[in-house]
Amino acid sequence: MGTLFEQTVKNISELDWVAMEAAQLRLDSFFKPPHSLGKLEDIAVQLAGIQGSLYGTCGKKVHVVFCSDNGVLAEGVSPQVKDVTKIVAEQMLDGHAAIAVLCRHSGIDLRVVDMGIAGAINGGYDNFLDRKISHGTANIAQGPAMTMEECMKAVETGIMIANDLARSDYELFSCGEMGKGNTTTSSAILYAITKAPINSCVGRGSVADDSQVENKKRVVMQAVQKNQPDASNPLDVLARLGGFDIAAMVGFYLGSAANKKPIILDGFISAVSALVACIIQPDVRGYVLPSHLSREPGMKIIYDMLGLEAILNLNMNLGEGTGAALAHHIVEASVKIIREMKTVQELGLDSFLTVAKSIPFKNP
Amino acid sequence: MGTLFEQTVKNISELDWVAMEAAQLRLDSFFKPPHSLGKLEDIAVQLAGIQGSLYGTCGKKVHVVFCSDNGVLAEGVSPQVKDVTKIVAEQMLDGHAAIAVLCRHSGIDLRVVDMGIAGAINGGYDNFLDRKISHGTANIAQGPAMTMEECMKAVETGIMIANDLARSDYELFSCGEMGKGNTTTSSAILYAITKAPINSCVGRGSVADDSQVENKKRVVMQAVQKNQPDASNPLDVLARLGGFDIAAMVGFYLGSAANKKPIILDGFISAVSALVACIIQPDVRGYVLPSHLSREPGMKIIYDMLGLEAILNLNMNLGEGTGAALAHHIVEASVKIIREMKTVQELGLDSFLTVAKSIPFKNP
Repeated sequence: MGTLFEQTVKNISELDWVAMEAAQLRLDSFFKPPHSLGKLEDIAVQLAGIQGSLYGTCGKKVHVVFCSDNGVLAEGVSPQVKDVTKIVAEQMLDGHAAIAVLCRHSGIDLRVVDMGIAGAINGGYDNFLDRKISHGTANIAQGPAMTMEECMKAVETGIMIANDLARSDYELFSCGEMGKGNTTTSSAILYAITKAPINSCVGRGSVADDSQVENKKRVVMQAVQKNQPDASNPLDVLARLGGFDIAAMVGFYLGSAANKKPIILDGFISAVSALVACIIQPDVRGYVLPSHLSREPGMKIIYDMLGLEAILNLNMNLGEGTGAALAHHIVEASVKIIREMKTVQELGLDSFLTVAKSIPFKNP
Repeated sequence: MGTLFEQTVKNISELDWVAMEAAQLRLDSFFKPPHSLGKLEDIAVQLAGIQGSLYGTCGKKVHVVFCSDNGVLAEGVSPQVKDVTKIVAEQMLDGHAAIAVLCRHSGIDLRVVDMGIAGAINGGYDNFLDRKISHGTANIAQGPAMTMEECMKAVETGIMIANDLARSDYELFSCGEMGKGNTTTSSAILYAITKAPINSCVGRGSVADDSQVENKKRVVMQAVQKNQPDASNPLDVLARLGGFDIAAMVGFYLGSAANKKPIILDGFISAVSALVACIIQPDVRGYVLPSHLSREPGMKIIYDMLGLEAILNLNMNLGEGTGAALAHHIVEASVKIIREMKTVQELGLDSFLTVAKSIPFKNP
C-alpha cells in the first residue's frame, strides 16, 4: 500500500504518445504552413498527451498560492518588514493583490494556503486553506529547515490539495508562492543539487545592494556546508534547505501529474519545486508547462535542465504566480486552435493537402 | 484643410506625460516591490499616456486583417498555390482560420478587409470590408508596385477604417495581414529604408530551401535597383516596393494614433508598416504596443529601431495577426492591475509606505 507520497509517485505515468501523434497529425492537416503556430501547437500536443485525448480541455482553471515564512530571514537575506507574508496573503484573499486581479481577469479560481505563516490569517475566507505546519521554518544557515516528518507532511499536503482539486473537476492547474526568504531557500536547494557556480544560483532576490547579495551567497554556501545534504536524495535536500511552501509545491506537482493534470510553472521558486519533483519522478516533466522567465539567474539553469522555454517575456518578479496566471489564457488558446480550426479535408480543400503538408506557403 | 492623410498626420500628438506620471505614481504606491510587475506596469503607463487618463480602459477590442495579393509572386518568391489569399480570407470570415479562433477566444471583434485580393470574396459577411483597389499589385522586380495615387488611396483606406472603429467606441486596436509575397515586399521596404545587409532584411518567408532564399534576396535587391526609391521619402518607398496591405496598415497606424487608440503590432509585415508610419510621424511610436517576435530576421532591426521588446515568445509565423490577438489579454491585464490593486494608503498600511517605495521586499 505505502504512504500517500509513495502511492502518488507510483501513479505518475508517461504521456499518451498515441494521442500526441493524433494531435500533431490534425494540426498538420490544417490549411496553414506546418508548425506556423509554434508553441501553441506544442502545447496542444502536450495537453493531448496529458489528457489522453486528441482534443484537450481546460474548462475549470485553478491557481494555488502556497504561503510560508522562513527562519533564514534571521541572516538578513531580505529586508525586515514585519508580517509581510501574512499581509500579502490576506490581500490575495481580499482580492487586491496582483494574483487576485490576474486570476479574476482570466477566470481562474484562486486558493490561498497557509503552510507556515508566522502569525494567523483572519478566518472567514472560502478560498483559504489553513494547513499551517508551524510558524515558519528554522534558519537553514544554522541547521535543517525542518524535520523529515515536517517535510513529508508539507509534501503530502500539496498532494492532497491536488487530489481535492482534481476531484472538483479542475482541468488546468498552476501554483505560486508568497514567503519572505524563499529565494534564498530556493537558491540553496539549486546549489546543493547542481553544484553550479554560486553566482549562477543566487540572484538579487529581495535585496537591494551588492553587499546584501554577497551576504546571501555566503548564507547559501554556509547552509549547504552546515547541513551536508545528500545531493542524490531530493527529499533530504528539501527538508534541510527548503521551506514549507517549496515542499508543498513539490507535492502539488507530484499530485497534479498523478491526476494527469497540466500544471503551469511560475518563477524561480516554483521552478525549483518543479525540479525537485522531476528528480523524484522524471515523468512529472511531461505535465509541466512554462510561463515567464523571472529575473533570478537560477531560473535559466532549471529551464535548461528541464528543457523548458518561457512563453511570456514580461520582466516580472513579483511571485505569487503572476506569470503562471497570465499563461492560462495562452494554454486555453491552444486548446481552441486544435478544436476550432478545420482540416483541409473538413474544408473540402483536399487538393491543397499535399501543399499544406509539404511546404510552408506563407511565413511572415 | 489638406487631404485626409495630411489632416491625420497633423492630428497625431505626443502622449500625455502628466497622466503617465500619475499612473507610475499609483503603481509605485502598491504594496509590492517597485516595478515588480515589469512590462504590465509599462503598458499601464503607456495606456494612461495614450488615453490621457490615470486608469486606461479597453472595453471594446478590434482586430483588422488587411488582405491583398502581390505581383512579385511572378518571381517565384513563394510557392505558387492558387487563390491562397482569397481562401484564407474566406476562412477568417467563416470563423475557421487561426485568427478567427483567437479573436473569439479573447473577445476581440474581427474585421477582414479586401485591399486587393486576386479574385472576389463571396459576399454576405457582416465583418467583411470590400476596399479592393485592384486585383493585386504589379511586380516590384520589374517596376513600381503601385502608382502614388493607388498608394495614397490604400493609406487613406486604412485611416478611414481606424476612424470608423474609433467612432464605434473601440478602445484597443490591432492589425494583421494575409497576402502571398508580402514578406518579400516588406523586406524590400526595410532594405531600401535601412540599407542594412541583405541577409538581415530577407528571411525564409514562405520558401522552403536555401536556393529559394537566395532568389528572394536577388529579387529584393533587383526591386530596389530597378525602382530607385527615395529612401528619405517613406511614401515613395511604400508606393514603389510595398503592397496594398502594407500601405493600408501604414494608414491604420496613423489613424489609430490620430484617434489616440493603442494599437498592437503583430509580426514582420505589420512591423514594417509601423516603421513606415513612425517615419512619417515619429509620435506614432507612443501608440504602438508589441506582441510577439516572428522568425523573420528583419523583425529584430525594426524592434531595435523602434525600441520595442516582444512580450510573447511563441515561435509563431502564421501572420493574420495571431500574435497581436494573443497580446490583447495582456494589455487588458495591465489595465486591471492599475484599476483593481490598492495602494498602501487605500489599504491602511501607511507605515509600509517608505518600505514599499524604497526597497524591493520580495523578488522571486
